Amino acid sequence: MPPLPDLDAIRAAHARIAPHVHRTPVLTCRSIDAETGARLYFKCENLQKVGAFKARGATNAVFSLTEAEARHGVVTHSSGNHGAALAYAAARRGIPVWVVMPDNAPKVKQDNVRRFGATIRFCAPTVAAREAACADIERETGAALIHPFDDERVIAGQGTAVVELLDDAPDLDVVIAPVGGGGLLSGTAIAAKALRSAVRVFGAEPANADDAARSFVSGRVEPLPSTTTIADGLRTTLSARTLAAIRAHVDAIGTAREAAIVRAMRMTWERMKIVIEPSSAVPLACLLERTLEASGARIGIILTGGNVDLDRLPWQV
Amino acid sequence: MPPLPDLDAIRAAHARIAPHVHRTPVLTCRSIDAETGARLYFKCENLQKVGAFKARGATNAVFSLTEAEARHGVVTHSSGNHGAALAYAAARRGIPVWVVMPDNAPKVKQDNVRRFGATIRFCAPTVAAREAACADIERETGAALIHPFDDERVIAGQGTAVVELLDDAPDLDVVIAPVGGGGLLSGTAIAAKALRSAVRVFGAEPANADDAARSFVSGRVEPLPSTTTIADGLRTTLSARTLAAIRAHVDAIGTAREAAIVRAMRMTWERMKIVIEPSSAVPLACLLERTLEASGARIGIILTGGNVDLDRLPWQV
Repeated sequence: MPPLPDLDAIRAAHARIAPHVHRTPVLTCRSIDAETGARLYFKCENLQKVGAFKARGATNAVFSLTEAEARHGVVTHSSGNHGAALAYAAARRGIPVWVVMPDNAPKVKQDNVRRFGATIRFCAPTVAAREAACADIERETGAALIHPFDDERVIAGQGTAVVELLDDAPDLDVVIAPVGGGGLLSGTAIAAKALRSAVRVFGAEPANADDAARSFVSGRVEPLPSTTTIADGLRTTLSARTLAAIRAHVDAIGTAREAAIVRAMRMTWERMKIVIEPSSAVPLACLLERTLEASGARIGIILTGGNVDLDRLPWQV
Repeated sequence: MPPLPDLDAIRAAHARIAPHVHRTPVLTCRSIDAETGARLYFKCENLQKVGAFKARGATNAVFSLTEAEARHGVVTHSSGNHGAALAYAAARRGIPVWVVMPDNAPKVKQDNVRRFGATIRFCAPTVAAREAACADIERETGAALIHPFDDERVIAGQGTAVVELLDDAPDLDVVIAPVGGGGLLSGTAIAAKALRSAVRVFGAEPANADDAARSFVSGRVEPLPSTTTIADGLRTTLSARTLAAIRAHVDAIGTAREAAIVRAMRMTWERMKIVIEPSSAVPLACLLERTLEASGARIGIILTGGNVDLDRLPWQV
């Protein structure tokens, strides 16, 4: 069984990354509360460094390396936000970084990586191709692989967001996080249940990429049905590690249709005046579709990121 | 000389409105700092109730009314944000509200007013037409006129934003606010100079609507040259009252071209992940164009609002 962090490890991560990441605000919006029949507390990781919660996990991993390990740099494969986060964290520590990226990754995410001085290596958009490219770089350079989610240090870093959320809004009944590879949901569930045993923790994912919901039921890592969802950050399967954490600590996983994700995204922009990417909108979409039922509850939602191509908004297609 | 609030009045306003408005966050962005060569602290009034700082002044005015005055309701003319803010404040107090609006006002701003239960009366988009419509409603109903900016209580309310900003970022060298009718800039300058005598206070306005910059020099309320700026919140001239406050307390007024306003707006969306309307982008646009010089300084910027039609973004025209 691959190791998972506990609350102590998540607290240690929080102290380690604090000088390098934002303590993001928690925002509320009465008019969205009225749409959902609940009281919502939005943890704004779209306002985080590099525009995504991924800054937390990547920074914890990079600053957990020994001097000897760090000297050779770090490498990862990522559809974008983890790549940018690793590039940011490596720049903060002053070490080299390579990012393997599918050649169809959105330009805004490529730019996000390059701006921190990372070297991008493009590959075909398949798991096999990106893992092979990563292994090549590890061999060539001695760089340490920092996996986007299947890594104890990354999971501990992602778990720090809910520590802050429960500090600002201690009486939550429910916490909801989107689930792609499951790093955020694992860290969130471990931390939230340890801090507040009565809290329910839900995952949220696109119906078009409902592998986590099916894995949660079957107990096996189920394959991704397709990659047609606009929530591009969630086109990933779980790992054995994140599935174990989720089965142990998560209460349910809801799914949302594409139209509901777009509606929730636009509603968040219009009512809350913040830019979120489609993945961030999936928890609210599940509440609007009532695939997660939480009427009257105090619900914390982790808004995971805000990296969007402003020339191609989903309601303008 | 029409009366102006002092710091005591602004502090009293702050206490009066605190139960009804958000204490908005102050955000920073290293990558925009790098573009401007300064350290910027953005006071996010786009995240305020009704999506604009106008909630502060309107709430202060409405809750300053006696019971006898309040019973007959309130009325105003507004291109939108003040109208929505007054509707919001009146709903909080449970009194009727009428809003006179030009018939070309953006739909998002009309919806913002209606959602709080205000009665809209449309008029031609001229100063004379809207003042006549307001006077009619005052006569018919006994409602109290709450002017969008030429009102001591409104100016005191608008001045509360910089009180919070200087509380969160006490060592600012400069504060910049957009200037339309001058209510925000007046309240900001009065409060900022009283709290921190060394601070410089700048106004920022579109070059296509540079009446405040010219009035600042001439000492007379100069007419608006045109209404072609996309910064629709700033298509207003000063009043004798706001001109007096600005001449007494403001150090300079910078102007920005339309292209710079669009660039600053998009930069804020992309880098900071927040939705701001064009008016909010004018201070940053002045810094990017160097019509306000503040290299190396610690600069507070008031982001005034986030009410934008998401189907008609200025970079997609």
